[in-house]
Amino acid sequence: MDSNQWLIQKNGEYWLKDTDVSCGSRTATLEIHHRVKEVLFAEQSKYQHVMVLHSYDFGKMLVLDGVVQSTEKDGFIYNEMITHVPLSIHPSAKRVLIIGGGDCGAAKEVTKYQSIEQIDMVELDELTVKVSKKYLPEISGNLSDSRVNFIFADGNEYIAKYKDYYDVIIIDSSDPIGPAQILYEQPFYQKVYDALTENGLMVCLGQSIFFYAEMVKEKFANLSKIFPITRMYTASIPSYPGTLYNFNLGSKKYHEVDVSSFNKETKYINSAILQSCFTLPSFMLDE
Amino acid sequence: MDSNQWLIQKNGEYWLKDTDVSCGSRTATLEIHHRVKEVLFAEQSKYQHVMVLHSYDFGKMLVLDGVVQSTEKDGFIYNEMITHVPLSIHPSAKRVLIIGGGDCGAAKEVTKYQSIEQIDMVELDELTVKVSKKYLPEISGNLSDSRVNFIFADGNEYIAKYKDYYDVIIIDSSDPIGPAQILYEQPFYQKVYDALTENGLMVCLGQSIFFYAEMVKEKFANLSKIFPITRMYTASIPSYPGTLYNFNLGSKKYHEVDVSSFNKETKYINSAILQSCFTLPSFMLDE
Repeated sequence: MDSNQWLIQKNGEYWLKDTDVSCGSRTATLEIHHRVKEVLFAEQSKYQHVMVLHSYDFGKMLVLDGVVQSTEKDGFIYNEMITHVPLSIHPSAKRVLIIGGGDCGAAKEVTKYQSIEQIDMVELDELTVKVSKKYLPEISGNLSDSRVNFIFADGNEYIAKYKDYYDVIIIDSSDPIGPAQILYEQPFYQKVYDALTENGLMVCLGQSIFFYAEMVKEKFANLSKIFPITRMYTASIPSYPGTLYNFNLGSKKYHEVDVSSFNKETKYINSAILQSCFTLPSFMLDE
Repeated sequence: MDSNQWLIQKNGEYWLKDTDVSCGSRTATLEIHHRVKEVLFAEQSKYQHVMVLHSYDFGKMLVLDGVVQSTEKDGFIYNEMITHVPLSIHPSAKRVLIIGGGDCGAAKEVTKYQSIEQIDMVELDELTVKVSKKYLPEISGNLSDSRVNFIFADGNEYIAKYKDYYDVIIIDSSDPIGPAQILYEQPFYQKVYDALTENGLMVCLGQSIFFYAEMVKEKFANLSKIFPITRMYTASIPSYPGTLYNFNLGSKKYHEVDVSSFNKETKYINSAILQSCFTLPSFMLDE
């Protein structure tokens, strides 16, 4: 069995020690310990340490630099929320770009829209896609859809080459510590704006609104400086520390969810959640 | 500093090791470790081990038999959800019973309704109330309201003495392991039904709908055998393992939330959440 700084041994059993990194630093004050049945894969890539673990409570999980990214048991919540909300707002998306999304779950959800012609997925680390396809078919869906183009490149550099091109951009990156940090900064969102068509919209994961309410509000305010329309929605993601996470939408034109036509096969989202997810707790509302 | 089986030492610092008990047994496959600034109180009562810890991420917390019950940082989510939803459904509650609720947070929320005349709080363990009033005023609000009657007794025995008496009963018990186990069983809910007036309604916490979806559905079906009207709503409670918890409503007459008149000062719930909390993920809906 592989041994590394994130796998600890207790009474002869392996456990993953996941610490909260959602604000961009390891706080070392909150840890979630997952008991591990089996280490299915563990290797250092050019960019990060990549593991696939089989845990007791969340099933198989993709773990990057010791942080749980996506699990067999709850990955669908995240992947459905980051795709079906924007795709229910844009009425006629043809070209979709996913930045990150190494677990391939977002791409799988996007392929459920027959009217979409092109799904480009720009992921820095090819190894995450390889292992997700091999070990996590429950999340990745194995993706044989010919509309999906895998591009292994730096998302920040890739997007700078496109202007007025994508209808929907989904930013599905890992935490703002390590290789994905740049994807959380303001210049990147300006490039995203420029790469969108005049009717385009983008979505990105925020942070734990519970732990980082003020930071979340500040980031949302910053996006409002770039996008004429911004909206925030939330979902509870049990495997992420802080659990109540926000997603930020930035749009040039469309903002209403077309609830009536939602007919995709999903495990979490449905037409009622497509509306209720925009409801925010009082502590997130401006006074 | 107090030493016990739930406080562990790592690099000279104390941490609380909280394990998932929401299904009624300690799974020992998932642990949440909270780094502790200070142990404010730790004592074995007649019924359970009672601690008040000051943690880094959740502030002060009430811990019973090693399980986090209520915290300074997120206790309001739970306490607001278990009170304002039923009190926004019953249009004219005068007598409210809280079973459990040792942190006093539910009682504090109920006192926000001027039209309520009597708030009886039946808690088994007087020590939890004492320490919550002393160490957790942020949650308990110190409760000097003369309408609140503290009764230190077994909730299951207490309720058997009342028929057709309470308008609203709030079951705010600890986990279904240890002293509160009986409050999760079917005969208890029949007594709750009998203690309610002909227009009465009750609410109780369920479990993690994420970890225990089937068990949650079964319990809800069992409540439907007793109450003519049952409804389920959810909230994300970051300090509880499994995080996405359900609340079950059992009612004899009323079922619609009066959203328009909600005007209480709260940190989490608001009129939008009073509606959206009833939205359930697809995996919780019957096919």
